[in-house]
Amino acid sequence: MNKNIAIVGATGLVGRKMIEVIQERNFPYKEIKALASERSAGTKINCKNFELTIQELTENSFEGIDIALFSAGSEISKKYAPIAAKQGCYVIDNSSCWRQAEDIPLVVPEVNPEELKMGSKIIANPNCSTIQLVLPLKALHDSFGLKRVVCSTYQSITGAGQKGLNKLNKELSNQETDGKHPIAFNAMFHDSNDDSGFTVEEQKMLAETRKIMGLPELKLAYTCVRLPILGGHCESVNLELEKDFSIEEVVNTLADFPGVTVIDDINNQIYPTPVMANDSDEVYVGRIRRDDSVQNGLYLWVVSDNIRKGAATNTVQIAEKLIEMNII
Amino acid sequence: MNKNIAIVGATGLVGRKMIEVIQERNFPYKEIKALASERSAGTKINCKNFELTIQELTENSFEGIDIALFSAGSEISKKYAPIAAKQGCYVIDNSSCWRQAEDIPLVVPEVNPEELKMGSKIIANPNCSTIQLVLPLKALHDSFGLKRVVCSTYQSITGAGQKGLNKLNKELSNQETDGKHPIAFNAMFHDSNDDSGFTVEEQKMLAETRKIMGLPELKLAYTCVRLPILGGHCESVNLELEKDFSIEEVVNTLADFPGVTVIDDINNQIYPTPVMANDSDEVYVGRIRRDDSVQNGLYLWVVSDNIRKGAATNTVQIAEKLIEMNII
Repeated sequence: MNKNIAIVGATGLVGRKMIEVIQERNFPYKEIKALASERSAGTKINCKNFELTIQELTENSFEGIDIALFSAGSEISKKYAPIAAKQGCYVIDNSSCWRQAEDIPLVVPEVNPEELKMGSKIIANPNCSTIQLVLPLKALHDSFGLKRVVCSTYQSITGAGQKGLNKLNKELSNQETDGKHPIAFNAMFHDSNDDSGFTVEEQKMLAETRKIMGLPELKLAYTCVRLPILGGHCESVNLELEKDFSIEEVVNTLADFPGVTVIDDINNQIYPTPVMANDSDEVYVGRIRRDDSVQNGLYLWVVSDNIRKGAATNTVQIAEKLIEMNII
Repeated sequence: MNKNIAIVGATGLVGRKMIEVIQERNFPYKEIKALASERSAGTKINCKNFELTIQELTENSFEGIDIALFSAGSEISKKYAPIAAKQGCYVIDNSSCWRQAEDIPLVVPEVNPEELKMGSKIIANPNCSTIQLVLPLKALHDSFGLKRVVCSTYQSITGAGQKGLNKLNKELSNQETDGKHPIAFNAMFHDSNDDSGFTVEEQKMLAETRKIMGLPELKLAYTCVRLPILGGHCESVNLELEKDFSIEEVVNTLADFPGVTVIDDINNQIYPTPVMANDSDEVYVGRIRRDDSVQNGLYLWVVSDNIRKGAATNTVQIAEKLIEMNII
């Protein structure tokens, strides 16, 4: 039976992409209710020739809704996700609000779908940088065992939403900027709000990788960088594996994992880039090579569309998985 | 006594910057001879209100020249550096041609100036990404011992010279591109020309770090990435040190090292960026924090102007050091 869907935050970059992805993937929906703040109510949004009128998000918005996909920030999720869940609606939440809550599953369908059986009505969608990383990590952990992961990210400014994209476009067109650092032609870090020395983004990635992988002691070292790139996030990954491997075994292990595509021929300048990953649901891996500076060392370059697999697509895939597993 | 200087490749991004840097740093010069190919001969270049007429590079160009700074590619260096040296001229060469030659010193003046005493008339200037990295590496190695270095670079497209900059500008203005990958809004790798899986840039960095540091067995893991950023290269560095340290000791060690400036207050969004490093001769270090995933683990973020300290300034500093050490 087809489902009634609500999109909370339907005017944002991710919200609009959720509506596109639902249609593209032929998700079995009856109706899509596009919800946003009172300010946007009545306006129309057009997602690939599919027009929806925005309705105001209220406590009564979830009557008759089977699945609500949230992407409107932590405050909205904190208030409205429990309201929706209480009315019997499954909430798949793209904010960071519920990700570390003990009784809330944090799910990447290719990696830890069994968490959906926990019975929680609220399901958290991980951070974009985490999602694309855990697919190759899971593949390699299952075959060779992960000992330590060092990762430096190359993140698209679209991670800052429409506001970030507007900032870049404004800077490129008139060279003016607001805030401490321009994003055009620059590299910047996310905010930091404690004395750890790590940014919020780095802390999210560290905690979420361990929760999704079910490896609370996994040795991780992450640095997250935001760049004027579009189409996807990239990650330069350096791994220490428990077991020895051949490069051929690693390539086959990655290529066989659902959702992962290997593109790797550096001699012919063939490798994943954010521009080529744009609008795809795959996680691309390239630059696969041995690192002789440590035992069982391995390099990877991981690229994926941060608005799709890193956000919208993963929420829709969670919804698909709920149906496939007969949970909803 | 003031020196007669020749700039070989005076029309390029680095060549023009060499002329600027010589003037800015009040290098003791008598005359500057600007040399380039026959095609450019007779044209005038203007470097910060200092005008020079380009002369054609020939075998006779080095008569009466004390120091020649080369930045015209490996082929030109291979042919003309020995010709200049034979005529008694000191050659400081920015190409990769002589860097791995056993009897040619590869010098960063703050790190290994004593190599200049070897008596070679040809001195190699290292790769831009290597130069900025070896300053903090040397500082930390002397105090704590380096065990392993993992580094992912964020390199400005100006590393590809005027041609790279033109490609970016063309793509930004009309969205057209040539070559396999656009650079606008993208991330790309350098060329690769063997079966190692590493790019030429990565191989240069690996070999040059070991040669400059005088540590042929140093454990290194590098990934080099080219980005649409301007003003400098950035490096996300993850270190394992031999000895334990406090963050305060590391900060003081780095801040005390000549040519290094620490900028590190992530809570107030204060850190080095390529845009702020532009037109400076310093190597900036920020994001200094402990990495608990390994014994004596440390993160650094290293930024410097790749055309200045990474190229032009370092060659001029080598010339200054030759004078200071009474070698010339």
